[in-house]
Amino acid sequence: MGQGKPFETVPGGSVTTPLGFRAGGLHCGLKKTDRNDLGAIVCEVPAVAAAVYTTNQVQAAPLKVTREGLEKEGRLRAVLVNSGNANACTGEAGEADAREMQETFARALGVPPHQVAVASTGVIGERLRMDRVRSGIAAMPEKLRADAEGAEAFCQAILTTDLVKKTVCVKLDMDGKTVHVAGAAKGSGMIHPNMATMLGFITTDAAVGGEALRSLLRQAVDVTFNMITVDGDTSTNDMVVAMASGLAGNDELGPDHPDWSRFAAAFTHVCEELAKAIARDGEGATKLIEVRVEGAASDDDARAIAKTVIGSSLVKAAMFGADANWGRIIAAVGRAGRPIDPAKVDISIGPIRVLEQSRPVPFDEDEALAYLKGGTIRIDVNLNIGTGRAVGWGCDLTYDYVRINAAYRT
Amino acid sequence: MGQGKPFETVPGGSVTTPLGFRAGGLHCGLKKTDRNDLGAIVCEVPAVAAAVYTTNQVQAAPLKVTREGLEKEGRLRAVLVNSGNANACTGEAGEADAREMQETFARALGVPPHQVAVASTGVIGERLRMDRVRSGIAAMPEKLRADAEGAEAFCQAILTTDLVKKTVCVKLDMDGKTVHVAGAAKGSGMIHPNMATMLGFITTDAAVGGEALRSLLRQAVDVTFNMITVDGDTSTNDMVVAMASGLAGNDELGPDHPDWSRFAAAFTHVCEELAKAIARDGEGATKLIEVRVEGAASDDDARAIAKTVIGSSLVKAAMFGADANWGRIIAAVGRAGRPIDPAKVDISIGPIRVLEQSRPVPFDEDEALAYLKGGTIRIDVNLNIGTGRAVGWGCDLTYDYVRINAAYRT
Repeated sequence: MGQGKPFETVPGGSVTTPLGFRAGGLHCGLKKTDRNDLGAIVCEVPAVAAAVYTTNQVQAAPLKVTREGLEKEGRLRAVLVNSGNANACTGEAGEADAREMQETFARALGVPPHQVAVASTGVIGERLRMDRVRSGIAAMPEKLRADAEGAEAFCQAILTTDLVKKTVCVKLDMDGKTVHVAGAAKGSGMIHPNMATMLGFITTDAAVGGEALRSLLRQAVDVTFNMITVDGDTSTNDMVVAMASGLAGNDELGPDHPDWSRFAAAFTHVCEELAKAIARDGEGATKLIEVRVEGAASDDDARAIAKTVIGSSLVKAAMFGADANWGRIIAAVGRAGRPIDPAKVDISIGPIRVLEQSRPVPFDEDEALAYLKGGTIRIDVNLNIGTGRAVGWGCDLTYDYVRINAAYRT
Repeated sequence: MGQGKPFETVPGGSVTTPLGFRAGGLHCGLKKTDRNDLGAIVCEVPAVAAAVYTTNQVQAAPLKVTREGLEKEGRLRAVLVNSGNANACTGEAGEADAREMQETFARALGVPPHQVAVASTGVIGERLRMDRVRSGIAAMPEKLRADAEGAEAFCQAILTTDLVKKTVCVKLDMDGKTVHVAGAAKGSGMIHPNMATMLGFITTDAAVGGEALRSLLRQAVDVTFNMITVDGDTSTNDMVVAMASGLAGNDELGPDHPDWSRFAAAFTHVCEELAKAIARDGEGATKLIEVRVEGAASDDDARAIAKTVIGSSLVKAAMFGADANWGRIIAAVGRAGRPIDPAKVDISIGPIRVLEQSRPVPFDEDEALAYLKGGTIRIDVNLNIGTGRAVGWGCDLTYDYVRINAAYRT
């Protein structure tokens, strides 16, 4: 790795690229199709682990079970994920099912139950078919592989109807050792299940302190996964889990390590790439939209304003229509409920300045149309009142979004 | 009017039904079509008046001019409204234009400028063609009529591309006199302009105190116009204006009048009917959705939760698809950021109970489908933790919403 290059992408890398991880997936019968519906990532040592959960007050049973397990020791040997059924709104029976998933897989691996995280995505309000889950868990250990094929089978098991596999891997040098950080995610694109659940799984072979990993994951999620908006709805099942095997052999990373900020940047990059992939693959989406807000009174204000713009159905529909409709953008800025000076807003759509100090700037409509027909649209908003900044990602609102979400469940 | 009946609807009634009001509309050339684009309501006496304005921090010029005028005396002789151009994001020149509209119409009527309110709806960021506005204002006085035809011409001038005329009139007995309360509104349904601006105009011939009218209007708007959500976007131009001529001859109404609550109910009913008509006529909408939340910790919590449900794109698309998808409803309840007990939520869709104490209730899918294919869908949510309650209205999310809003501006 060249001097000054903080990290580099590993082409074809996946969650099994970091040392110590195997992954796999199989079809156990929770989905009506024959696609994989049960997947696992397993670490050969008890990985230092951290997780963040949906802010929705209605949380699915597996989140509770995973949280309780992680609180015991902060280490994980495995995550087990099913698709086809969210195990949400299933009461105490659903919680018992999630716990049984955890315990059964732990027994199959010969590890303590609290070192197994469980996650689910799919239909809400129906009990898991535990007979099928049990037989899937029994078959899982021999499916686990340390190569790209294992990671691929895992990705298929969590993808449901996502269009695009979301996986990324980077490597960087730490204390003379090569360290990898990789991730896999599922996002919106679920037709049959009820929710656009977002699941993210990060693996790394770096040695990282537990508290350091927890705070890094939270900070990274705040500026990446939490800054994507497909339709403003938050699932009952959202969860991001990180596991660090420590097998790269570097000195334990934490805020006091001289290269901590470089590791944090690589880790955040992995989260950002997954988040952008989720946004781009939003239900029915044809474009990725990136909204950058600067000049806000605070970063928090900038975040709220970016999310309001990216979440505006009017803005999203205009982007689908390749319409440089800055009126909708400034209207969204104005209703975000955060301080602005209504006379001082600058807006650019890609390279085209459309509003300066809240006054329209004449622009070439053909140039705007050509830019807006691209697959990635960037909107820059400068509030010119402070130094707060944020970036958010979303997608356009299309006929297909309506078609997908108006489809009857059965 | 029968004893005990608080008020009754006047079939065919309109803003000119209350004594003292004339209205009219004409085409002055702000729209490309030959439809009316300038309208006015005029009162033969200085009416006690009140207004509420958009909460968007970016506010169009006419709102500022109207607010300043009303603050002087709290009385209005007229409102003048143009469509085709919102006069928003037009800077000081736009403010001068709004002021010229006010002053020119005041001169034409022979009244003080501060007794004229102005409102605009249409494209953002373009200057008004004032030559056309001036010639329209000059022609307006002879268009004013005290009958239904005048009200109709006014409605056409504010409707732009709304599909349905939104007008309502009720009458009730006060101190042995017949008092009328009427309203007209425009809502979403604007294809060419950029914003789904909402404008409401209430006329009454009741004698009402100024402070009483102001607080009544604010309270009524809070539970009606402010409880509709078409797409969550708030226009820079939203405004509701109420004028009371006092010509019915009743004793001045205020909180101390024995029949105040009955008048307030009639006034609120007028606002509610207009709000529901706006929601039902949302861009591309095929259904009115009414969300009732009860059992919340406070009314304010109930309002926030109702608006989150009614604003959920996933819920809206499910209603379009006649899908009794309660998973999306409880997920929206859970992410509203207000206190709930995730284990205690009841949900009904129309007459069909689908969730009880957060557990799914088996229901007949055919019965649900038949109900959801109707034109009005009611969703009841009981949080079972308090006595707070609220009602909100919205519409479904359809292919036509996307088509309308993805359409290029020109």
